[in-house]
Amino acid sequence: MELIDGKAISEQVKKEIAQEVAQIIAKGGKQPHLAVIIVGHDGGSETYVAHKVKSCEQVGFKSTRIAFEEDITEEQLLSEIHKLNEDPDVDGFIVQLPLPKHLDEQKVIEAIDYRKDVDGFHPINVGRTNIGLPSFVSATPAGILELLKRYQIETDGKKVVIIGRSNIVGKPMASLLIQKGYPGNATVTICHSHTKNLKEVVREADIIIAAMGSPKFVTADMVKDGATVIDVGTTRVPDPSRKSGFRLTGDVDFENVAPKCAYITPVPGGVGPMTICSLLKNTLLAGKKAIYK
Amino acid sequence: MELIDGKAISEQVKKEIAQEVAQIIAKGGKQPHLAVIIVGHDGGSETYVAHKVKSCEQVGFKSTRIAFEEDITEEQLLSEIHKLNEDPDVDGFIVQLPLPKHLDEQKVIEAIDYRKDVDGFHPINVGRTNIGLPSFVSATPAGILELLKRYQIETDGKKVVIIGRSNIVGKPMASLLIQKGYPGNATVTICHSHTKNLKEVVREADIIIAAMGSPKFVTADMVKDGATVIDVGTTRVPDPSRKSGFRLTGDVDFENVAPKCAYITPVPGGVGPMTICSLLKNTLLAGKKAIYK
Repeated sequence: MELIDGKAISEQVKKEIAQEVAQIIAKGGKQPHLAVIIVGHDGGSETYVAHKVKSCEQVGFKSTRIAFEEDITEEQLLSEIHKLNEDPDVDGFIVQLPLPKHLDEQKVIEAIDYRKDVDGFHPINVGRTNIGLPSFVSATPAGILELLKRYQIETDGKKVVIIGRSNIVGKPMASLLIQKGYPGNATVTICHSHTKNLKEVVREADIIIAAMGSPKFVTADMVKDGATVIDVGTTRVPDPSRKSGFRLTGDVDFENVAPKCAYITPVPGGVGPMTICSLLKNTLLAGKKAIYK
Repeated sequence: MELIDGKAISEQVKKEIAQEVAQIIAKGGKQPHLAVIIVGHDGGSETYVAHKVKSCEQVGFKSTRIAFEEDITEEQLLSEIHKLNEDPDVDGFIVQLPLPKHLDEQKVIEAIDYRKDVDGFHPINVGRTNIGLPSFVSATPAGILELLKRYQIETDGKKVVIIGRSNIVGKPMASLLIQKGYPGNATVTICHSHTKNLKEVVREADIIIAAMGSPKFVTADMVKDGATVIDVGTTRVPDPSRKSGFRLTGDVDFENVAPKCAYITPVPGGVGPMTICSLLKNTLLAGKKAIYK
């Protein structure tokens, strides 16, 4: 069993991005610039945004954090998005989700210029990912592809079972793994809450991608010997022994599943650290105008 | 075994559309208007376009056929598309594919205003279909959903195996069948040329959607008793006994597979007739501004 070290890979990827940024700037190019809009004071969101801003610093990006109180109107938020769409210095920006209930998330996402949509949530990027065209790929699936590549895990002709059909993980993951080329050419099955005989379906997988947000759902009896297991779950389970009061728990019963695997991602330290890398990579691509002119 | 009669269903759907159009016009509403651009003189394309124009007449739509010679430049074609985008009388339009090699199909597709993209090929419509938002769904998958609905074929929790990963059938079909609701909630597997043990994978399916364009590829030993088989294949196989010189052949060995099935679509007369219905339905939706304002 080999542990997929997302933390180490993410540090490596950040180093590579930092080197490229240094080269761009040395040649007189523009410093990539990511803006992040955050609404309200959700603890998780504030932590994520702080990480994103800090990561920008680490790789030499300019970053702008734009914070609004929870009572911002949709009109005000859309007006801020339009400003960022028009700002030639901002290469990419994101609106941290979830938003307060009075704001229409889909409307907000679609207001973002798709050429600056480094979260990859705009329908144009979702559609281009599905068709197999260059696009901003959403962070978690892009991070998983990067892990598969760095560990040279074969996907061609492999049976991949994705558990979970969310718009930001399950669906784009399926779109990506059925494309021609590597990492792709997989036979992909998408499972979810309505799937019958889930255990049997998952047991056939060469690669399992667990992304339904149900702690320790994937147990050892669902995993074939020698499978690769990618755990996307990050549920906060209360833990009074921790200073934070919780611990991140994956969708996989790691302790019992790991011994059967060829490769497995831990939680934390697996897929999680890769998501920020994907955001940075998309911002770099936006700065270089590598996807859209 | 029950035969899925796509021809009869398509006639029924056209009648329903015609009734709705008559009501719209009786109330002083606008007659839906579909424009079709055709480039060159490909025999198949000319036949398809003629069918589309004729179907518009049948349901009471206005239609415009715009024909160009094969040597039209990309600039000229894009300019025509921009005219149609701006024309308030045209509710929806399509560019008949394939195009001559000197024209960039993807560029042409993306030049179409997504609000008039009744073929559902624009990345925005592909993305919205994938996310599960209202969209113009591409014709073949939409036609298949309609057949499943009209025959009340259960999809919830069923194992669907899609053979073929094309942008216009396999991928959107998967997007649709994993959505919540009916027809959806299926456990979907996408197979293709790189799939290993294809026979075994297909044999587990409750519903098989064969869309790889390989005549009689799906044989009886690949089909579980009681399965539903949807045959998307329409390969022209030479047949000197026919006036046309060919016969349409599906991807399923119908003669031997049919006796095992709960439901099966014939070729011709199954999925084929439904695709024009989908185009008409999308045009009606465009005319009513039911998807986009």
